[in-house]
Amino acid sequence: MANNLRPKIDTTTSSTAAKQADALSKIPQEWRLPADILQKVSVTSDISVMDVPSTCGILDSTEIEITENYTATVLANKIATGVFSSLQVAQVFCKRAAIAQQLTNCLTETMFPEAIERAKFLDKYLIDNGKPLGPLHGLPISVKDGFNIKGVPSTLGYILFQSYPVPEENSPVIDILLSLGAIIHVKTNVPQTMMAAETHNNLFGRTLNPRRLSHTAGGSSGGEGVCVAMRGSIIGLGTDIAGSIRIPSLCNGTYGFKPSANRIPYGGQSSSGRKGGPGVKASAGPLANSAEDLHLLFKSIICADPWQHDSAAIAMPYKNIARKTSLRLGFIAEDPAHPVAPPIARALETAFQRLAAAGHEVVKMSEFPSPAEAANLCWSFYLTDPQNTTSKIIEQGGEPKVPAISLTWENPKLPNVDMDEYYNINTKRRELKAEWHKMFVEQKFDAVMLPAYMDTAPAHDKYGTVCYTAFANLLDYPAAVIPFEVANQEKDLPNPTVPNFPGNVRLCSTGSDTTKNG
Amino acid sequence: MANNLRPKIDTTTSSTAAKQADALSKIPQEWRLPADILQKVSVTSDISVMDVPSTCGILDSTEIEITENYTATVLANKIATGVFSSLQVAQVFCKRAAIAQQLTNCLTETMFPEAIERAKFLDKYLIDNGKPLGPLHGLPISVKDGFNIKGVPSTLGYILFQSYPVPEENSPVIDILLSLGAIIHVKTNVPQTMMAAETHNNLFGRTLNPRRLSHTAGGSSGGEGVCVAMRGSIIGLGTDIAGSIRIPSLCNGTYGFKPSANRIPYGGQSSSGRKGGPGVKASAGPLANSAEDLHLLFKSIICADPWQHDSAAIAMPYKNIARKTSLRLGFIAEDPAHPVAPPIARALETAFQRLAAAGHEVVKMSEFPSPAEAANLCWSFYLTDPQNTTSKIIEQGGEPKVPAISLTWENPKLPNVDMDEYYNINTKRRELKAEWHKMFVEQKFDAVMLPAYMDTAPAHDKYGTVCYTAFANLLDYPAAVIPFEVANQEKDLPNPTVPNFPGNVRLCSTGSDTTKNG
Repeated sequence: MANNLRPKIDTTTSSTAAKQADALSKIPQEWRLPADILQKVSVTSDISVMDVPSTCGILDSTEIEITENYTATVLANKIATGVFSSLQVAQVFCKRAAIAQQLTNCLTETMFPEAIERAKFLDKYLIDNGKPLGPLHGLPISVKDGFNIKGVPSTLGYILFQSYPVPEENSPVIDILLSLGAIIHVKTNVPQTMMAAETHNNLFGRTLNPRRLSHTAGGSSGGEGVCVAMRGSIIGLGTDIAGSIRIPSLCNGTYGFKPSANRIPYGGQSSSGRKGGPGVKASAGPLANSAEDLHLLFKSIICADPWQHDSAAIAMPYKNIARKTSLRLGFIAEDPAHPVAPPIARALETAFQRLAAAGHEVVKMSEFPSPAEAANLCWSFYLTDPQNTTSKIIEQGGEPKVPAISLTWENPKLPNVDMDEYYNINTKRRELKAEWHKMFVEQKFDAVMLPAYMDTAPAHDKYGTVCYTAFANLLDYPAAVIPFEVANQEKDLPNPTVPNFPGNVRLCSTGSDTTKNG
Repeated sequence: MANNLRPKIDTTTSSTAAKQADALSKIPQEWRLPADILQKVSVTSDISVMDVPSTCGILDSTEIEITENYTATVLANKIATGVFSSLQVAQVFCKRAAIAQQLTNCLTETMFPEAIERAKFLDKYLIDNGKPLGPLHGLPISVKDGFNIKGVPSTLGYILFQSYPVPEENSPVIDILLSLGAIIHVKTNVPQTMMAAETHNNLFGRTLNPRRLSHTAGGSSGGEGVCVAMRGSIIGLGTDIAGSIRIPSLCNGTYGFKPSANRIPYGGQSSSGRKGGPGVKASAGPLANSAEDLHLLFKSIICADPWQHDSAAIAMPYKNIARKTSLRLGFIAEDPAHPVAPPIARALETAFQRLAAAGHEVVKMSEFPSPAEAANLCWSFYLTDPQNTTSKIIEQGGEPKVPAISLTWENPKLPNVDMDEYYNINTKRRELKAEWHKMFVEQKFDAVMLPAYMDTAPAHDKYGTVCYTAFANLLDYPAAVIPFEVANQEKDLPNPTVPNFPGNVRLCSTGSDTTKNG
C-alpha cells in the first residue's frame, strides 16, 4: 500500500485531491517511490530530493546515464546514430518525470502511454528513412500547462477551467516541436493566474523546490524549472512576461532563456486572463541544463519557419552570428534600490573575475538605467483590464486566491490603468527603451551581466520583487539566466549593509546575462 | 516682376501667405517660372504640369537627362564612376524641386544651399577616397515634413508648431541616409493632422496633383508623391499608417512601399498627435519612380543596421531572398462592398493576363478575408486618445480644420475607444490577422495583388474610403503600390453596376501588391 501514498502537498480543495489522485493513478506501480521516501516529502520539509531518482532503485545504471550524463544535443545524436532508441529514452524520462512528480508535484497532465507510442513511431521512422525526423528526434520535452495539446486539458490550475472543453488543436509551437521529432510526455504546473513567482494553485496544488522542499520552485514556469532540474525532461518550454522562465531557472539551478516576444510562437495557448490586452508581451522560451540545449531548442524552432504556423510570430530568420573570441560585457553588480545578498554578490564577482581572466572585456557600470524603474513600470501594463478577468475566473470557480496572489497583487491594491494613463506609461516605456538602447550602443556591449534576483530561492510565498527580470520584458530584450556557483555558509557571511533576506542557507546563486541582439 | 508670382493655391491664413512667400524667396530668380505658366496654376485648373520642367527652358538637355532618364540605382553608379558629379546632380534636382514647388506647392522647407555644400563635400570625398560614401552617394532625397533635421522647422503644417523649438537633432533615419551618402534637399508637404488623403494645411496650403491640378495629390505623404513624380527628387521618404505612402503613389503614378512597422526607423519624428498611443503602428518607407529604387532605399537602410540608431527598430537583417522565376500570386479583383471603377478593373485584369502569360501562377480569389473589414477596424485604433490631442493642437493654433479633416473625421463623429473596448478590438485584430495568415499559408502565396483604391485620383477633398490600403496597416504586412496602365475614356466605359465616381477623366490606374514576407 505504501506506494499509493501521495506527498503531503497542499490539498486546499477536493479538486486538488481528486487531480492528484488522478495523476498518481497514471503512474505505473513499478515507478512509485517507497513509503519511507514519500513520508519525508512535505511542504515544510528542509530536505533535498535531488539524489532520489538515482538512489531509489527505480532506475538502472544505463537509465541514470541516459538522463544525467548528456546534453540534449548529445542525446539526440546518440538516438540518431542508434546508440539509444527513442523508446528507451522516452521510457526512462517518463519514469523520471513520474519520480519528480511524486517528490515535488511539478506536473499537471502526463501523457506516458502516448509518449511511448510516439517513441515507437520515431524508432520506425529512423529505420525506414535512415535519418531522424528532425533535430529534436526522440528528445522528451516538457511543456508548461498553458500550451494546448489536442485531447489534453489546459486548465492552468483554475477550478473553473475544469468545465472548459478540452483543446481540439495543438498550439502552433507544439506542432513545430512534433514536426522536429520531439516527444512531449508531460505538462507542468503553474501558479494560479500565471502571474506569480510561486507555483501554486487550487487544482494541482503546490510545486516544491527539489533542493529544499520548504522553498519555492519559482514561477510561473515553476513546474518546468523542477522537471528540468530533476531531469524528468531533457528540455522544457516555458513562458515569461515578468521573469516566468528565468525565476524558476534561478530557483532550481537550470539555464533559462526568454527570447524577444513572438520569436518562438506564443499563440494558441489557453489564456489565464483576458485576451487582447495591450502592453508588455509574453515570450515563450526554453529551460534546460546547458546553454547548448537552450540554443538547440531556439534554433530548431526558428529554423522551422514559425511564422508559417502562428500569425503573430515574427518572420525573422535564425541569425548565424560568428562566435567572438572576446566579448565586451557590461556588468551591473546591483540596482542600489535592491541590494543583493552575499552569495549573489560573490557569484557575480567570481564570474566577473573569470570572464576578465578569460580575455573578455567586462565593464563594471557605476551609472546605468535602473532595472527596478523599468520593472516597476511593467506593473502598470499588467493592470489594464477593467473587467479584472482573472479575479472573475477565480470567483466563478468558487476557489480562494492562493497566498502568493494575494501577496503580490493586493498588497497594496494597485489601480487599473485607463486609456489616458496608458498613453503616459507607453511614452515612459519608449523613453526607458531609448535609455537602455543608448547604453548598449554607446558602450558597444555584446551583452550586460546582472543579477536575476536579490537572493537565492526563498521559502514558499516569500519571493520578492521581480525587478531584475521584468525590466527585460518591458524592453522586450532577450535575456537568459545562467546558473553559476553555489551558496556557501562560510564564504557568504552576512553583509551588514544588506537587508536580512529570508532563507539563511542558500542553494544556488545565479547570474543573468542579457543580450540586446538574440 | 512676373517671376515673383505665387501660384493661386489656398492661402487660408496670413501664415500660409507668409510661409509661401518665404519659400519663394529661397528660390533663385533664375529658377523661377515665367508669368504665363504661373498664371495657369490654380487649385481649380484642369491642366497637367508634368511637362513644364522639361519645356520651360530652365533646364538644359543634360539636366533633363539627369533627372528623367535614370533610376536612382543607375544614377548612383554614374556619380560613383564620375560620369556626373554630385554637385551637378544636386543642382539640377534642387532646380527641379523648385519648379515643382511653383507648380504644385509640394514642399515645406527647402535646403538648397545646404544641399549644394553637401554635394561639394561628397565630390571631394569621392576624389579623396576613391570610392563613394555609401550606396546613396550623391542622390537627392526628399523627406516628409515630420522627419527632424537639425536646424530645420518640423511644423507639420500646424500653425501652433511654428512657435515650437526647431529640432536640435536629426531623426535616426536622417542620420542613416546621410551616412549612406544621400543629399537631403527638401522636406515635403502633409495634411493637417497627417490623417487625411488630401495634402492640405493652413501653414503651407494645399498641394496639387501635377497631372491635373484640380485633383488631389493624395496624402498624407502627398508632397512626396508630387515631388517624386515631377522628379524633384530621385527617391522620397514617407510614412504610412492607413495608406499615406501608397495613396500619394497611386494619385501621382509613382511606386510606393510600406514595409512592416519599425523596419525603416520611424523614431525621432515630430508627432502630429499624442505620443504613446497603442494599436496600429505607422511605417516609414520609400516612394520612387521604379521598383528597383524602392528596393535600393530599403536595402541600403536595412543594411546600415538601423537598430543601432533607433531603439524601436527591429533588429532584423536584410533577407537575401532568391529571385523566383515563377510567383504564386493571389488576385483579389475587388472587395464586393467597395467595387472598383472601370480603369482600375481593366488595369488589374490586364496585369492578371500579363502575369499569367509570363508564367506566373495567379489565383483569382472568389473567397478571401475582407480588406474593408480590416480597414474599418483601423479607425477604432486611431481613436484612442481621450484628450483628442490633434484637435487641441488645431484649436490652440487658432486655425480652422481643413475640409478633408472635417469630412474624414467628423462625418459621422466616431466615439473614442476606452480600455475595455480596446481589449475587444485588439482581440478582433488578432482574429483577422489569423484569417489573412491562413489564406497566405494555405494557398502558399508569394504575394496578393489587389486594387489600392476604387478609382484613380479624385478631385480635391473627394478621396473616399482607404479600405484597400489601411488593411495592410492593421495586419502590419508589407505592401507596395505599382503604377500600371493609364485611364482611357474609350476603353473605360462606365459600368452600370459601379457607383458614379468623382472625376470623369482618370489619370492613372494602379494595382497594389501585398506580400507577406518583405
